[in-house]
Amino acid sequence: MLQINNNVSGATERLESGIAELSEFRESDRPGWTRDVFSESYRASRQWTADRMRAAGLEVFTDAAGNIVGRLAGRNPNAPVLVTGSHTDTVDGGGRFDGVVGVLGAIEAVQQLRESGQVLTRDLLVVDFLGEESNPYGLSCLGSRAAAGELTPADLDRTDYRGVTLGESFASFGLDPAAAMASHWARSTPLHSYIELHIEQGPTLEQRGLPLGIVTGIAGIERLIATFTGSPDHAGTRPMDDRRDAMVAAAEAVLAIRSEGCGAPNHGVATTTRVESESRSPNVVPSLVRTVSEVRSVDSEWLTGVRGRLAEEILTRAQAHGVDVEFNWSTDNEVVSASTGVQDIAAGAADQLGVPWMPIPSGATHDAVHMATLAPMGMIFVPSKAGKSHCPEEWTDTADIATGVGALVSTLAALDTTDLPPAARN
Amino acid sequence: MLQINNNVSGATERLESGIAELSEFRESDRPGWTRDVFSESYRASRQWTADRMRAAGLEVFTDAAGNIVGRLAGRNPNAPVLVTGSHTDTVDGGGRFDGVVGVLGAIEAVQQLRESGQVLTRDLLVVDFLGEESNPYGLSCLGSRAAAGELTPADLDRTDYRGVTLGESFASFGLDPAAAMASHWARSTPLHSYIELHIEQGPTLEQRGLPLGIVTGIAGIERLIATFTGSPDHAGTRPMDDRRDAMVAAAEAVLAIRSEGCGAPNHGVATTTRVESESRSPNVVPSLVRTVSEVRSVDSEWLTGVRGRLAEEILTRAQAHGVDVEFNWSTDNEVVSASTGVQDIAAGAADQLGVPWMPIPSGATHDAVHMATLAPMGMIFVPSKAGKSHCPEEWTDTADIATGVGALVSTLAALDTTDLPPAARN
Repeated sequence: MLQINNNVSGATERLESGIAELSEFRESDRPGWTRDVFSESYRASRQWTADRMRAAGLEVFTDAAGNIVGRLAGRNPNAPVLVTGSHTDTVDGGGRFDGVVGVLGAIEAVQQLRESGQVLTRDLLVVDFLGEESNPYGLSCLGSRAAAGELTPADLDRTDYRGVTLGESFASFGLDPAAAMASHWARSTPLHSYIELHIEQGPTLEQRGLPLGIVTGIAGIERLIATFTGSPDHAGTRPMDDRRDAMVAAAEAVLAIRSEGCGAPNHGVATTTRVESESRSPNVVPSLVRTVSEVRSVDSEWLTGVRGRLAEEILTRAQAHGVDVEFNWSTDNEVVSASTGVQDIAAGAADQLGVPWMPIPSGATHDAVHMATLAPMGMIFVPSKAGKSHCPEEWTDTADIATGVGALVSTLAALDTTDLPPAARN
Repeated sequence: MLQINNNVSGATERLESGIAELSEFRESDRPGWTRDVFSESYRASRQWTADRMRAAGLEVFTDAAGNIVGRLAGRNPNAPVLVTGSHTDTVDGGGRFDGVVGVLGAIEAVQQLRESGQVLTRDLLVVDFLGEESNPYGLSCLGSRAAAGELTPADLDRTDYRGVTLGESFASFGLDPAAAMASHWARSTPLHSYIELHIEQGPTLEQRGLPLGIVTGIAGIERLIATFTGSPDHAGTRPMDDRRDAMVAAAEAVLAIRSEGCGAPNHGVATTTRVESESRSPNVVPSLVRTVSEVRSVDSEWLTGVRGRLAEEILTRAQAHGVDVEFNWSTDNEVVSASTGVQDIAAGAADQLGVPWMPIPSGATHDAVHMATLAPMGMIFVPSKAGKSHCPEEWTDTADIATGVGALVSTLAALDTTDLPPAARN
């Protein structure tokens, strides 16, 4: 295994300046460090990212789905290739590290590989995937989804709140939607494995005082849009015992969803992010209210039962208020296990570097979910300060990122020389 | 007392055609029968209303606050005048009867008085008050408020969601905001009494099988905008026991507010009409949520205690979730009692017509709240089908409206000949 000094000269400075420069590309009228997919700030930032890749010695191209790919040629052009990367878009009001650490960390890894004089057998692709975060079209991981051949015509017909379709947004970003849909990597490029460096986005590593997590699996996500229909009545004249108040039923659902998350046996979370009333009037009993909620877990068995349990609980509570409920469920992604082979190699690399680590589930979803359909997949987590993410306060110390990059370099080097057994692909 | 046949020839037809014609003035892009204050459909409808007043023999003018006033001259131009009326604007998605019955009913009453050959001693003013319903400026009863001298410079600075001020909206409607503010009727016109015919907007009269209600008082309204501040975290990675979820605290508040209304000893209602989350992202634990609620009662003692009781309950529940709450209370109006003198005269008129009635509190607010500061005030209610109001299904049978008009005519005739004692003014 290639030995990498964890305090590579210049690594800290390069990572710090990279994160600082990239974070300047942001939407000035939104809170935090917002860089929405398809926005002007995102478009401008990706030119910067491509330049950064080139400066590290990568041969850069953009694929039909808008993924920026930097290639480091290996000795054997016919060997299945290594892939690493992440994304550089953010949630609205987000931070500077989510995704960015995986892209700039991968570029830094290439820099260190090249400076060490080590030439890999396999080609290494560093990817900045298009639009990983949730967006107004309700479809995350646009680039990795396309790479996995999972982007559908129905997806391209999804509309944002202005009625603009996802396909139109691809086109206005200079991408041919049909070509994006057809850009299934499996057709062109045999992949050996995918490894993604990412911030944890939760508090566990910091609480345990550990610098690294090796991901065991990525939580499945069930999304629920529930529509509560009651009766519109004058809020001043309709007696309390004669109401069908959709807002009250929605509030009961918010609490039921929270209870469901609290009762999960393993890692499980449940959140209602929006409650919307159709009526604009302040003096009408709400008759049409929508809630937007999500439930996540790495425990497939528990997650499979969520729809049934929540539907019963929410409906029972709503009916007690005379309110009807319509449930619109969608599975964002199933529970995805990391490859045991990739986990073992990453763990071995961390051990050899003398870096303490723990196995950890990922509550957040990642491009890795889709890359797992193409190749054995693994992820390396670095700590998030106070577990904060998707907010301006999101923070990871550069020293922790540098440790993660060291583990990434060692893992890539070890993967390069390993034939993963078929079993490790699951 | 003047005897009026309850089935006056032509009354039913006039009322029906009037309601049908007026309801055609509406905003085609909004649900129900929407006629917002300051809208083009409202502007056009008021020309129709003024014409309808003229056709009934009224001398019509518009005062500085935009109230349309039709004057029926009495024998003694120096006697304090009688006033009746209501409004013709609607809530968003509202119905065809709220307010309209009081304006068209008053015009019909004039028609019947003139056809009967009876000439009143006092002048009678029929008023279509400007913008009674809640609006985006958060200030209802614009016209009656101005007539009562209650419109303030701060009110005119209120803005709608586009940032347009109320003063600017007055101006764009052809009204001088300063003159509207100065149009205090008490300075120009000594009033004898105010009586308003209105639909009940609740289910009580229908449930009791009674055609008339004589209003005892109008509920006070306390409005609450509560702001819940938690912590923004990734909804997939932040454990349930380590969250400060503002949406959960808001949901608890919705239920606490409902419980408060259910526990009212007399007529009391409590409603949350909006729950708004600041974040647009579906995968962030909500950290800033606002609720918009109102509590109403004719029981001043109970209503006075609402702020303290709800603040304690909402705060206690929020703190259990680690969420802070900021309370922004405002009093829309205090509890207003109807004049006992006007109530007695209206009751006597109903009795003499042989129409069964009941004393009834008004949960809705009305222009009568503000007119009560100028003169002894009373209201006559007619039934609302299934108690529905502020919705397209709002309905009152024309026969019931005609009965209400009959009671209004008799009450006006009786008020005309009565010197209300000072005690009756409260």
